[in-house]
Amino acid sequence: MTDITRSLLLTDLYQLTMLQAYWQHRMNEVAVFELFVRKLPPGRRFMVAAGLDSALDLIENARLDSAELAWVDGCGRFAAGFAEWLGNLRFTGDLWAIPEGTVFFPAEPILRVVAPIAEAQWLETRLLNLVHLQTLIATKAAHCVLAADGRDLIDFGLRRAHGAEAGLLAARSAWLSGFAGTATALAGLRFGIPVFGTMAHSFVQAHDSEAAAFKAFAESFPDNAVLLIDTYDTVAAAHTVAHIAPELAARGIHVKGVRLDSGDLDALSREVRSVLDGAGLTDAIIFASGNLDEQIVHELVAARAPIDSYGIGTSLTTSSDAPALDAVYKLQEYAGLARRKRSAGKATWPGRKQVWRFTGEQGNFGHDVVALESEGYEGTPLLNEVMHRGARLGAVVELADSRRLCADQLAHLPPALRASPTGVSATAYPVNISARVQALADEVDRRTAGDPSSGTTGSG
Amino acid sequence: MTDITRSLLLTDLYQLTMLQAYWQHRMNEVAVFELFVRKLPPGRRFMVAAGLDSALDLIENARLDSAELAWVDGCGRFAAGFAEWLGNLRFTGDLWAIPEGTVFFPAEPILRVVAPIAEAQWLETRLLNLVHLQTLIATKAAHCVLAADGRDLIDFGLRRAHGAEAGLLAARSAWLSGFAGTATALAGLRFGIPVFGTMAHSFVQAHDSEAAAFKAFAESFPDNAVLLIDTYDTVAAAHTVAHIAPELAARGIHVKGVRLDSGDLDALSREVRSVLDGAGLTDAIIFASGNLDEQIVHELVAARAPIDSYGIGTSLTTSSDAPALDAVYKLQEYAGLARRKRSAGKATWPGRKQVWRFTGEQGNFGHDVVALESEGYEGTPLLNEVMHRGARLGAVVELADSRRLCADQLAHLPPALRASPTGVSATAYPVNISARVQALADEVDRRTAGDPSSGTTGSG
Repeated sequence: MTDITRSLLLTDLYQLTMLQAYWQHRMNEVAVFELFVRKLPPGRRFMVAAGLDSALDLIENARLDSAELAWVDGCGRFAAGFAEWLGNLRFTGDLWAIPEGTVFFPAEPILRVVAPIAEAQWLETRLLNLVHLQTLIATKAAHCVLAADGRDLIDFGLRRAHGAEAGLLAARSAWLSGFAGTATALAGLRFGIPVFGTMAHSFVQAHDSEAAAFKAFAESFPDNAVLLIDTYDTVAAAHTVAHIAPELAARGIHVKGVRLDSGDLDALSREVRSVLDGAGLTDAIIFASGNLDEQIVHELVAARAPIDSYGIGTSLTTSSDAPALDAVYKLQEYAGLARRKRSAGKATWPGRKQVWRFTGEQGNFGHDVVALESEGYEGTPLLNEVMHRGARLGAVVELADSRRLCADQLAHLPPALRASPTGVSATAYPVNISARVQALADEVDRRTAGDPSSGTTGSG
Repeated sequence: MTDITRSLLLTDLYQLTMLQAYWQHRMNEVAVFELFVRKLPPGRRFMVAAGLDSALDLIENARLDSAELAWVDGCGRFAAGFAEWLGNLRFTGDLWAIPEGTVFFPAEPILRVVAPIAEAQWLETRLLNLVHLQTLIATKAAHCVLAADGRDLIDFGLRRAHGAEAGLLAARSAWLSGFAGTATALAGLRFGIPVFGTMAHSFVQAHDSEAAAFKAFAESFPDNAVLLIDTYDTVAAAHTVAHIAPELAARGIHVKGVRLDSGDLDALSREVRSVLDGAGLTDAIIFASGNLDEQIVHELVAARAPIDSYGIGTSLTTSSDAPALDAVYKLQEYAGLARRKRSAGKATWPGRKQVWRFTGEQGNFGHDVVALESEGYEGTPLLNEVMHRGARLGAVVELADSRRLCADQLAHLPPALRASPTGVSATAYPVNISARVQALADEVDRRTAGDPSSGTTGSG
C-alpha cells in the first residue's frame, strides 16, 4: 500500500465531490486560495510559519495509486471517467509563501495558491493538515525557547505525539524554532537534527541496584552517559553517582550528567548540584524533564535553578494547552473576481494579498499591513513566489538556514511579545488591513448580497 | 525511503542506547512491561481502549531498513556490531491485551508485553505513540457519542489532525466508538468506514450565485447533495434551496439536505427547518458543523434543535480539551522479580497483572479489581493473550466487531458515567488494587530501599 503520508486520497470526501462538479460543469478558471490563521489561541503572542517544505513536496509528489483510483471509481458515488481524470490531475499553478521560520500574526496569509480551481481545491485538506501541524508546533516551541532564555531544550515528546508524522515533524518544527535537538532517532536521519538520549526508569529497575545500572550504562557510553536518578530517591541516587564516579574515572569513564524526571525540580536540582559539586563532578550537567512546559521552564530559569538543559515532551508535541490553530484555506478570487464568505464570525478578506512588515522601535518589528498584491508599500513583503506553473523556484532552502531565520525573527520581536510566558501581552502586535482590502470586501458584499441571482458586477 | 509509519527508528534514542547496554552486558532475561494510563484527564469519565490492531501490526512488521541501520552504524554513538544485531532483532515474546472498544479506567493495564528485555524495551516509544493516540481519540469520540444521544456524528477533523496518521487513525477510532462515519476518503478504502461529504464555502463562492452553486452540485449528485447554506446568509440560502427544489425535482434531482456551519445553530436550525418544511422538503436533513464538541452537541440535543447529524472536527481529532492521556509503559518484572518505580507522583504497581470486571446494579459495570495474574477472581478478566512467542493467536478481529463491542460497553456504563458531558461524576468508577498487589509493592520497596547495593531478596 502507498505510504499514507504521500496519498492525496488522504483528503475530505467533499474535495472529491466538488472536483467532480467542477469537472462536469467545466469550471476550470484560475482560483486564488490563501492559507491563514484567524486568531491567536490563548497563551500565544505570535506564530512561526512552518511546513512549507512539506507543502512543496506534497504538491510535487503526492499521487493517487491504482488501488486508490479503483476505490474512487468503484465506490458508487462518482461519474464514469472521473477517477481517470483525477488520476491525471497535476498541479500547474503558482505558490506564494512566507519562508519557514518567519514570525506571523492572525489574518496574514502564509500561503497563496493560484491555479485552476480543481487543482487548488484538491490540495486544501492535506495542505492544511501539514502546515497547521508544523506551524502549531513551531509556534509552541518558539514560546518555550524564549522562556528558556538560553538553556538548551530537547524534544522528548514522540511517545504522546499524535502518530508517526506528528512525532517526526514535531522534532523538525521544534528544531526550526531553536530547540537544541530531539530524542527522536529518525529525525536525526531524515533532517540531520542533533539527537539526544539518556536512559529510562526500566533500565534502572531491571538492574539489582542503581549503582549497577549506572555502572553498566556508563561502561556502554563512556563519554556520554546521562544517568536517570529519580527512580527511587533522587538525592540518594545523586550520592550513588558521586560514590561510583571515582572508580569509573579510574577506568576512563566520564559521567556526563544526571537527569531529574519528577519531584520539586528547583529544590532537587540544588541538592543534586551540591552533591555532585561536593564530589568534584562540577562538569556534570543536570538535565530536567517530566511534564514540563514553557511556564514551568520560565519559573525554574527565573528562580535560577541549576538546571542546564530541559526535555520537553507532551506539552510540545501536542501543543497541549492549545492543540489547534484556527487555520483555514479560503477562496479569495475566482475567474478574476474577488470572493469572500460572510459567515457569522468567519468572514474573510477577499483578493490576492501580500503582507508587509514595518520596522519599529530599536529595529524590532513595528507593525504589519495586509494589502492587495497590487498595492505598493515601503516595508518588507513576506510572501515570495516559490513555485511557478508547477515548478519550484530557486534552490531548496536548508533547514539550518530556516532555523537561523527564526532565531533572527525572535530576536526582533517587540519586547512585549518576547518577554513573558504568562499570557498574551495587553497590546497585541498591530496588523492593519489596508483600505483597499476593506473597500474590496464592501464591493464583494454588494455583489453577493441580496438576491441569489444577483450575478457578478464587481471588479477583480 | 521507508514509510515512516513502519520504521522502528521512529523511536527515542534512549531505547537504542539502552539496547546497546543490554546487548553488551548480556541482559536478556524476560521482562514484563505494562501499558496503562495513570489518571483520567479533566472532562473524561472513562476511557476506550484502541490501537491494538496497530500494535500487532507494528510488532509483526516494523523493521529498520538498510539506510536506517547505516545511520545507527555511522552516527558515532554505538559500538561495532550493534547495528547488525539490531537489524536482526525480532519479537519472540507474548502480548496480552484488552480488546479494542473495551471501556477501561486508570491504573488498569491495557497491554502487557512479556519478552526478552531488549525486544520489549525496543517497542516502548512507538507502541505508546500508536495506542495513546487511538485510545485518546476513541475516548473523546465515545463521550461525543453519548452526548449525541442517537444522532449521527461524522468525523470532519482531518485538516487539523496532527498529520497523516493522526487523521487516518482518528477516523478509525471515532468509528470504533460509534461515529456514523468520516469525511476522510482514505479511511473508506483502508478501513471500510462509511464516508460522508458535502461541499465547501469555496464551491459556493466560485459560482456567481448560491442558486447556481446549489444547482450545479445537485446536478452532479442527484441523490446525495447536502448543500452548504451559511456562506452569506443562512436563512436566505434556505429560501434559495426551497425556491430551486421544485425545478430540480422535476428533473429527478432530490436535495438530500442542508448544512449549517456557523451562527446560532439552535435558532438557525429551527428557522431553516421551518423554511424547508414550508416548501414540502420534510425529508431534507439538517446537518450541523463548525467548532462543535460534545458539550455543544449535548446542549443542542437537550434543546431539541431539529438537527439530524453533526460533523465534529478539530475537537475530535485533536481531543482538543485534553490532547494527551497520561499513558505509560512500565517495567513490572524482570528476570522473575517484580519491579516498580517510586518516583514522586509516578509510582507504579509491580508484577504481572490482570483486570477483573464485576457486574453491579442493573447489569451495569459495578467495579474493577487490578490483581496479580496468579490470583483467581469470579469476575470477567479483561486481558487476553493475543500473541504467543511472536505469533498472533486467533483470527483477526474485524473492526465492525470491535465497534459492536464498544457500543455494548457504553450501554453497560453505570448511569453516572453515561450521563452528562459536563464533567466527571462526583463518584468515580471504583477500581480496587488487590491486597496481593499492594503487598508485592511493599516487598519490592523493601528490596530496593536504602543501600544501592541491597541486591535482590524478593520473590517474583
